[in-house]
Amino acid sequence: MVVPLKVGLAGLGTVGASVARLLGEQRELLALRCGRPIDLVAVSARSRRKERGIDLSGLRWVADPVRLATDPEIDVFVELMGGEGDPAHAAVAAALKAGRSVVTANKALLARHGVELAAAAEKNGVALNFEAAVGGAIPIVKTLREGLAGNAVTRVYGILNGTCNYMLTRMEREKLSFDACLKDAQRLGYAEADPSFDIEGHDTAQKLAILASLTFGTRVDPSAIYVEGITSITTADLEAADELGYRIKLLGVAVRTDEGIEQRVHPTMVPKDSAIAQVMGVTNAVTIDAEGIAPITLVGPGAGGMATASAVVSDIADIARGVRAAPFGRPQSKLTVSRKAPMQRHEGGYYIRLIAVDKPGTFAAIAHRLAEQHISIESIVQRHRSPQGGDDPRQPPPVPVILITYATTEDAVRKALAAVKRDRVISGEPQLIRIEKN
Amino acid sequence: MVVPLKVGLAGLGTVGASVARLLGEQRELLALRCGRPIDLVAVSARSRRKERGIDLSGLRWVADPVRLATDPEIDVFVELMGGEGDPAHAAVAAALKAGRSVVTANKALLARHGVELAAAAEKNGVALNFEAAVGGAIPIVKTLREGLAGNAVTRVYGILNGTCNYMLTRMEREKLSFDACLKDAQRLGYAEADPSFDIEGHDTAQKLAILASLTFGTRVDPSAIYVEGITSITTADLEAADELGYRIKLLGVAVRTDEGIEQRVHPTMVPKDSAIAQVMGVTNAVTIDAEGIAPITLVGPGAGGMATASAVVSDIADIARGVRAAPFGRPQSKLTVSRKAPMQRHEGGYYIRLIAVDKPGTFAAIAHRLAEQHISIESIVQRHRSPQGGDDPRQPPPVPVILITYATTEDAVRKALAAVKRDRVISGEPQLIRIEKN
Repeated sequence: MVVPLKVGLAGLGTVGASVARLLGEQRELLALRCGRPIDLVAVSARSRRKERGIDLSGLRWVADPVRLATDPEIDVFVELMGGEGDPAHAAVAAALKAGRSVVTANKALLARHGVELAAAAEKNGVALNFEAAVGGAIPIVKTLREGLAGNAVTRVYGILNGTCNYMLTRMEREKLSFDACLKDAQRLGYAEADPSFDIEGHDTAQKLAILASLTFGTRVDPSAIYVEGITSITTADLEAADELGYRIKLLGVAVRTDEGIEQRVHPTMVPKDSAIAQVMGVTNAVTIDAEGIAPITLVGPGAGGMATASAVVSDIADIARGVRAAPFGRPQSKLTVSRKAPMQRHEGGYYIRLIAVDKPGTFAAIAHRLAEQHISIESIVQRHRSPQGGDDPRQPPPVPVILITYATTEDAVRKALAAVKRDRVISGEPQLIRIEKN
Repeated sequence: MVVPLKVGLAGLGTVGASVARLLGEQRELLALRCGRPIDLVAVSARSRRKERGIDLSGLRWVADPVRLATDPEIDVFVELMGGEGDPAHAAVAAALKAGRSVVTANKALLARHGVELAAAAEKNGVALNFEAAVGGAIPIVKTLREGLAGNAVTRVYGILNGTCNYMLTRMEREKLSFDACLKDAQRLGYAEADPSFDIEGHDTAQKLAILASLTFGTRVDPSAIYVEGITSITTADLEAADELGYRIKLLGVAVRTDEGIEQRVHPTMVPKDSAIAQVMGVTNAVTIDAEGIAPITLVGPGAGGMATASAVVSDIADIARGVRAAPFGRPQSKLTVSRKAPMQRHEGGYYIRLIAVDKPGTFAAIAHRLAEQHISIESIVQRHRSPQGGDDPRQPPPVPVILITYATTEDAVRKALAAVKRDRVISGEPQLIRIEKN
């Protein structure tokens, strides 16, 4: 006899409602693909009355999500409430302890409690699946966990936040200022009222922490990540990038180096002809570099009710099918504490934009400070127009200078720029954007 | 006690040797990820002495691959001999019958005997995995089989042949003629001495047959595919495409229509800003359109020893981990006979390049024939230079005319062009390239 897989679902926002709808609409297809039906039997959400456009009749309503998590009737607990704290944490922990498999889209929960939850899943022999937590409908978790099982992955990087990529795309295409773009994104629903979690890189960092763990077998640790958001990016940077053959993307990068695992989130210059540079708007993308093979890039919708629901349902389907993989790709006890590669040791090319004071010797002074740190310059763009001031003929206008360096270290660049500032040959703060080669 | 998974490997060409090397080098990682070691225990190949750069000592040599397939010591038979006939077919069939799981990279075998082999795998409760058969290291089979389990996929299309994409890329970038490009590709090892299987689209068709089956739950059937290769593509077409905002790619496309499943392989105009248009050189890519979500595109190396081996090893790892999925995503008995959508009913935009005879009324005649078939023209490019002849002042030179149509049917276009030919207002054969919208 074929036993259906019984699902309890907590959280009926856009994603939760889409999961309920998909499980209903695709019931036959799922049964065919999994060899058994998947039955949504009980739900939990804050408000029972809210209109969600789905039929909840026939489903048990369990007001307390933690009670739903350990409900004797369910096999799988689907957590779509969000948030790293309770009730999400309490409910997921309770479900695993009670021997229920868990599917969640909750990146914050995993970034914070991933190791503990993986241990609980393992101890109780159940699944903890979270395809939807990173990259929406893109099958990146599965690919890192199962698809490249035999490859030594050396680097994983991607566009993991739709809001930032949407803003950078519009700023580039429409030459919009950051502030104008943000306001419009908020108006259109692409950015939150409080956008800081997205635009300051923290959302990307939580997702990167999960990818890094899957890739390198390290314990999830967002505190190991260097994080810089997109708030300092100007249209001048985007235009200069374009001229120099680059685009600017907010990337999360995890890379194996001699110093350990380097994890960083920052605006990044990527070559225009790279796969990642083509990714526009709210789309997400992840590139995987593995030894001996050309990069693999997965591109797709990173957010949205149906995209996220699609990933949640495929996680449920895997459980129905009997697939069991360690949550982070290997036994929790074998996850290593990542040796954090210090950002100061980061090696790569840099884009530096300075406002040089227009007086004799300025450029020689800058060049001298770079040479002191053994930094070689690949190209220089000096723009003969000033974005600010310069109306007073007695006061020579400041001159924007853009430098692209050959590979050097973060430490060297920081020291050189500090010296340049002390020399008072530039005005304001220098802009610094790291270059990532493909 | 942990029981290793024992592997027998038939075929020690570039891919086979890379699989042997990966299984050795990544033994520890694989054991960690799969919960048990994977042991290569026996091999079979045509020549025992050939230098392959791998250590075969400690491995049993079984001269006959069919005997290796049923060897009592092995759990998994890895078939990397290639070819749709014997010994590959006999060996795979024997292995499945004897209750051994099978991993193969053999697209020809699957395109021809996929249904029969899937039935045998199912009957004997073993796995038949073939990630490497389509798109090399790109995890497309897994994504269609497991990753989008709950989505109604409406279309899948991709660049599945590296040779063709390499040639189209070079022709476009270097304005090389087809013949010159082919010669160079052959010299550099990107095209076979007999390139017809690749450049006439048959390799793409075999891979598309597999993707279509996974996507739509139909029985693999390459004979249902309309196939057209890239041999008629000229630099004039590539230049015109560029001007009009397109690139030309050889695509395999499977799409659900009202008429049934349309499966076709042909040179295709894709919008320059689409993900698939960015894919250059030998790289492969597949885009999946599913209901309610934005397209998902997977890009990566489609061929090469290590790329293919990587996919083979992940298939072996899945078996070690105990993952069982129906070979084509659902029980073989539930695979439907695809209702073949006739190519004449294909709907879409068309690029038409004609050499018009330069005499009064020519264009009116062409326009009339198109109007007769209710074909609307989106744009017209008339080039004021002739690629051929025209030295004789008494003989007006022929004029290349490029038309882009709005969506129409294959039937209408064919009929209109036949009428235009009968009217003797064009010289030579018209070029016709289908447009695929993203």
